[in-house]
Amino acid sequence: MTREPHLHRDGTWVGASVPRREDPRLLTGRGRFVDDIRLPGMLHAAFVRSTEAHARIASVDLSAVREVPGVVAAFSAADLGLHDIVALLDRPLHEFVPTAMPVLAKDKVRFVGEPIAIVVARDPYAAEDGREAAVVEYEPLPPITSDSAALAEGAALVHEEAPRNTLVDVSLFATEGIDEVFAAAHTVVEVRARTGRQNALPLETRGAVAEWDDRDEQLRVHTCTQVPHQVRTVLAASAGLDEKEVRVIVPDMGGGFGLKCVVGREEIATAAAALRLRKPVKWIEDRSEALTASFLAREQRYTVRAAFDADGRIQALDADVVCDMGAYSCYPFTAGIEPLMASAEMPGVYKVPAYRVRGRAVTTNKAPTAPYRGVSRPQYVMVMERVMEKAARALGIDPVELRRRNVITEFPYRGVNDVTYDPGSYKESLDLCEQVLRDEGWFDRRGSDPAIGIGFACFSERTGYGSGAFAQRKMAVVPGFDVSEIRMDLDGTVSVTTGTLSHGQSHETTMAQIVADRLGIPYDKVKIVQGDTDRVLYGWGSFASRSITIGGSAAAASAEKLGERLRVIAAHLMDVDVESTELDGAGGVRAGDRRLSFTEIAEVAYLRSHLLPKDVEPGLSATASFDVGGDGTFSNATHAAVVRLDPGTGGVEILRYVCVEDCGVAINPKVVEGQARGGIAQGIAGALFEEVRYDDAGQPLAASFMEYKVPTAAEIPDVRIEHLETPCAFTANGAKGAGEGGTIGAPAAVLNAVNDALRHTGVELDDTPIPREAIFRALERAAEPALEAR
Amino acid sequence: MTREPHLHRDGTWVGASVPRREDPRLLTGRGRFVDDIRLPGMLHAAFVRSTEAHARIASVDLSAVREVPGVVAAFSAADLGLHDIVALLDRPLHEFVPTAMPVLAKDKVRFVGEPIAIVVARDPYAAEDGREAAVVEYEPLPPITSDSAALAEGAALVHEEAPRNTLVDVSLFATEGIDEVFAAAHTVVEVRARTGRQNALPLETRGAVAEWDDRDEQLRVHTCTQVPHQVRTVLAASAGLDEKEVRVIVPDMGGGFGLKCVVGREEIATAAAALRLRKPVKWIEDRSEALTASFLAREQRYTVRAAFDADGRIQALDADVVCDMGAYSCYPFTAGIEPLMASAEMPGVYKVPAYRVRGRAVTTNKAPTAPYRGVSRPQYVMVMERVMEKAARALGIDPVELRRRNVITEFPYRGVNDVTYDPGSYKESLDLCEQVLRDEGWFDRRGSDPAIGIGFACFSERTGYGSGAFAQRKMAVVPGFDVSEIRMDLDGTVSVTTGTLSHGQSHETTMAQIVADRLGIPYDKVKIVQGDTDRVLYGWGSFASRSITIGGSAAAASAEKLGERLRVIAAHLMDVDVESTELDGAGGVRAGDRRLSFTEIAEVAYLRSHLLPKDVEPGLSATASFDVGGDGTFSNATHAAVVRLDPGTGGVEILRYVCVEDCGVAINPKVVEGQARGGIAQGIAGALFEEVRYDDAGQPLAASFMEYKVPTAAEIPDVRIEHLETPCAFTANGAKGAGEGGTIGAPAAVLNAVNDALRHTGVELDDTPIPREAIFRALERAAEPALEAR
Repeated sequence: MTREPHLHRDGTWVGASVPRREDPRLLTGRGRFVDDIRLPGMLHAAFVRSTEAHARIASVDLSAVREVPGVVAAFSAADLGLHDIVALLDRPLHEFVPTAMPVLAKDKVRFVGEPIAIVVARDPYAAEDGREAAVVEYEPLPPITSDSAALAEGAALVHEEAPRNTLVDVSLFATEGIDEVFAAAHTVVEVRARTGRQNALPLETRGAVAEWDDRDEQLRVHTCTQVPHQVRTVLAASAGLDEKEVRVIVPDMGGGFGLKCVVGREEIATAAAALRLRKPVKWIEDRSEALTASFLAREQRYTVRAAFDADGRIQALDADVVCDMGAYSCYPFTAGIEPLMASAEMPGVYKVPAYRVRGRAVTTNKAPTAPYRGVSRPQYVMVMERVMEKAARALGIDPVELRRRNVITEFPYRGVNDVTYDPGSYKESLDLCEQVLRDEGWFDRRGSDPAIGIGFACFSERTGYGSGAFAQRKMAVVPGFDVSEIRMDLDGTVSVTTGTLSHGQSHETTMAQIVADRLGIPYDKVKIVQGDTDRVLYGWGSFASRSITIGGSAAAASAEKLGERLRVIAAHLMDVDVESTELDGAGGVRAGDRRLSFTEIAEVAYLRSHLLPKDVEPGLSATASFDVGGDGTFSNATHAAVVRLDPGTGGVEILRYVCVEDCGVAINPKVVEGQARGGIAQGIAGALFEEVRYDDAGQPLAASFMEYKVPTAAEIPDVRIEHLETPCAFTANGAKGAGEGGTIGAPAAVLNAVNDALRHTGVELDDTPIPREAIFRALERAAEPALEAR
Repeated sequence: MTREPHLHRDGTWVGASVPRREDPRLLTGRGRFVDDIRLPGMLHAAFVRSTEAHARIASVDLSAVREVPGVVAAFSAADLGLHDIVALLDRPLHEFVPTAMPVLAKDKVRFVGEPIAIVVARDPYAAEDGREAAVVEYEPLPPITSDSAALAEGAALVHEEAPRNTLVDVSLFATEGIDEVFAAAHTVVEVRARTGRQNALPLETRGAVAEWDDRDEQLRVHTCTQVPHQVRTVLAASAGLDEKEVRVIVPDMGGGFGLKCVVGREEIATAAAALRLRKPVKWIEDRSEALTASFLAREQRYTVRAAFDADGRIQALDADVVCDMGAYSCYPFTAGIEPLMASAEMPGVYKVPAYRVRGRAVTTNKAPTAPYRGVSRPQYVMVMERVMEKAARALGIDPVELRRRNVITEFPYRGVNDVTYDPGSYKESLDLCEQVLRDEGWFDRRGSDPAIGIGFACFSERTGYGSGAFAQRKMAVVPGFDVSEIRMDLDGTVSVTTGTLSHGQSHETTMAQIVADRLGIPYDKVKIVQGDTDRVLYGWGSFASRSITIGGSAAAASAEKLGERLRVIAAHLMDVDVESTELDGAGGVRAGDRRLSFTEIAEVAYLRSHLLPKDVEPGLSATASFDVGGDGTFSNATHAAVVRLDPGTGGVEILRYVCVEDCGVAINPKVVEGQARGGIAQGIAGALFEEVRYDDAGQPLAASFMEYKVPTAAEIPDVRIEHLETPCAFTANGAKGAGEGGTIGAPAAVLNAVNDALRHTGVELDDTPIPREAIFRALERAAEPALEAR
């Protein structure tokens, strides 16, 4: 662990906030998003969607649709005959129940908004008119609209092929004697919390432009996905094509946040329609569909108890988490991911000696969920940080001091959750965060203004999930590795593939920085190739903050392999030992006072291959892979929010937000800061504003930005970011993942700050989004005796 | 050597005439050629071309061009500011003189049709109108219109930066004491021959569609070239871009025949205009441009003497060849290729003990040349076969018997030309060819009809030029290798890249056959990826019959490497030794009675990489290269033509054509036959019909099919093809190249047959195309004394 901010050598690209390669095109409107793609003769799709939460489909009549002027075709599930999508998880994982998701609903609908038919027309307006003309007859079934309803004895089954609505029920840990620890504890605190159902809300909604290429015999799909190869696999399997007959291309993307790391049904249906019609078909999701019929996230219910000794040291943790997965288990991530993540990592940054957890995923008649930024971490961190604050209050210990006594300080640390934590700045970030607030005078202001509250959140985040980590959880798919193929052309410029996929995270810049350093060339001479299943051997895409840790490390490894090859060739040509050569950091190989430039070496490798050493193949390319292995690496941070409550409205004003983050070596600090700020904004949104609620009939109550309350710039405070740097020992450049952290800490910090500001009311609020009305009433009630007293 | 026609195992794809993968799309009009590419907002280009053969450009005024309605832009060399194209050949090769070829003519024009300016307009008609409006002022210089004029003392210089018009003057071999051999010889024969200037005449003319992709920051050029990577290199260098900023994509192609294996100036100019305008630009060459301003070929002049002993055994060969390269040395093949090829390989299939040769390339004010199918071989084989016929006649030995006494029969054979010939069926093909003619009664018919002549041609052809062969000739570029990248997807289907480029040769079928056998999967589960510089690491394209020998061997090597990887993984999963496993020929790996399918192995390699052996990288891909090394391999054949001369017109009717070919193992015999038939048709065209002549002012005299006489189906006989099979020891499947052979043998066979039919006239004709008038006059003169005698 080090706090040295300038660990990296001088003169490297890594560590410098160089301008983004993406900016010139994105800032001047030259980006290409899915909706920018216009193909000759392109048709437009719209979907007939279920108006029922749970019903049998008696009939689907599209004859009137086909009569609508401009409509070219309309297909139901029966018309397209596609295979279902089945997400996999290895049995036996406490009897995971796999469920099939049809591309278009067949016998049953399971949530309002579920796609039933696709209408293809000459323009989007005709497509909309067409879908209005569809006649679907339903036989309604009892809707399951909450986790408790799903778990209830005798509940209607969302999936009749499953024996129950609980798709996963897993108890990963149960320390022996834990009940005795609780019984003997000095203090036990309990938190019951529910987190609301959110939409990840990328600026760009989902969409696809698909075309069958008659000449290449390939179904080409331009779509905004975080996982192009997985879309290819699902599409090929659904449509009965070879994988080589499908090409998925991802252009620029306006965000994903996990919502686009599961395979969408509409993209598959759009591609199938294009295949059937042999015409290009475009589908662009509208915002109402995005809010109700794409993927939602976050809805979980926690019941957690924690035992503490008199000094405030945690002795045991007992947790029960129920995740409301909605109607389907999505590909490739199953219903298992949320309870598994929460169960495995809930102890977080704290030294928890005894641990018991039960995690369940239940299926309900609501839009299915995707692993939104942070996955279960914003929720369990929020619960753990509430535990800490409650314990601090119960024990009369300052909450920062209480955390200080509990955070892991010696690394590697083997947790009760069978996880080995690599070094992090858990205590240092906490200290610095507190110091910043103190220096800025916030503790003083809090002392003089009871409406002000300060809340902390201290967390770590596993960011390099290696295959070992996944395999250990018996996930069927084990996205632990990345493969990178690099090539240097005749002129010494480099192209490098990555199986990850930048959809806003600036990888075209940061990966180029990594590769440029490895080869000693300018970062604009490195082109990152991503998001094309024909160009990239295989990739798991970008999620779980894996891109730089895993993808970046693979790119670095391929660059190093190429560098080695350049040295071998140069040594041969200069007739010296390879050991006596080195890359000179300026596009050449040096041996003593002799030098060959990369272009000179490339000329031999491509144009005069007879001059190559015997065992060196012509051309300049290399392939390398990287897998973190073991338990991965952990980023960490401490967040603090300072809020003031408005007694007149119950509103929460965030006066200050401080983030002390440690993602190891920041490849590009400016990029890391952008990730942190964006994540914090999303975390605040979840803490205070955004929720898709459903009524008892399973109708979503937020179908537009009128009902789904998205914070604007006015609600998001300026954020002070401080960097600590504890390099990871086994990733390229010592980087750890930085994509999710902001979102993880913010709900906890804000919730704790609000509760701190409610300290005089006796009211504690543990659910998010925090109901403004509850704050208002708490403040109102607290004020009443004061009025009476006056 | 073997004549066993079914060497290959049963049940293999190789050796079977399976239907072509290309046929469904090409036969149903679903191919995509350059002219099929239409991009939104696409503009159209036409070229202002020189009307002078040799002149200084006093001024280029495009102001009127830009006023023509529909014209968007017009650029001269000065406007585009591109770097010149320079073909390279290592010095010292007898002081090769490199010359620069500007993309658009600058100070001088050097042939009629040379591009001076590019006009870009909204449609092709406006572009044509625009180019008519250009005003170019010339200061004429003396045109050099023949090799003798180029060589003349005090000749005007085509390139003033060069000290002379001879760009290459090379004497590769000069056996000591050769003059004494000639002096003491029983018989010396001499052949003086000139071969006419031809156009390779692909059905599809040249063309390009170029666009700057603002998002990918890449200049994308769709063009019909045999050498996409070389186009990329030239374009990047000309326009000052990185190679990674250029992507060359080759769609379907309607032939190339070598004309498209040099980089065209118009394609570069079109791309530069697209780059400048930031709009897509299309240029499609019209036939008149193709005949006069693209690339021509074949024009050579030979003076050859050969010494024979009384038994008809050749004792020495003394050759002088002058190649008229036209105005420029083209990239990547220089003016050196024709004289080098002729010099190195002229002894051909014969045991020549003493050899002397001088080869020169001269530059003239005619359209430049490209290495058309066979390169110098149709010419030097024609000359050698004339030598054999003349010697046979002089010695009174049957010409087949004379050849039989001279052909190489013991292999490997080290020739006087420093070349080692691998085994071939030189004598066997000759015997079989003669036998076929005898069996069909042609010798009898010749005996009874003096208008009938029979001509033979016996030749071999080096088809796998390894880097060694090129390096030995001191070529700057050494296109000896190919690299292939293969990947197997999750479903066990395979994509494999090749650096070669099928432009009519059916590689999508034949390479798939090769790879399918290596892996034991159906050939339609193998997709060949070619012709895209972003997809293919590097490639030298297709020419010199190198595709199957080198590209096919690289593809086989990558498939074998992948097969090995599949076995390693399977062995690990089945817990057995790798040695005990084998590919089962049905998409799986077998060990005893246990088996894993490729899809099962792929699932581990991609989805459960933690189950892989420690040292095996995730994913299923492999890269392998192949270089023939040494002197390559030699295909061979004997051709025979039976002709009847028409005394009324001097016309030549080909009554029968027999081809006994040996290209080693024929991957797909039907494809080989197609190559042979097409090549023979082109050879006949050169022998009897096609020529671009120039007048003394350097004006081309064949600017349309009215003047350039292309044979139709009526002129091309049915061809009987017999296969012999002498497998190559070091290429995949024992294949040798098969692309050029037909063209090489036909001119010699036809010319010999015509001379045989003229045997009673005393006239011998050694130039091609054979002047019909000369035949007519010879027959007429021969008939006159007969008339007088009557």
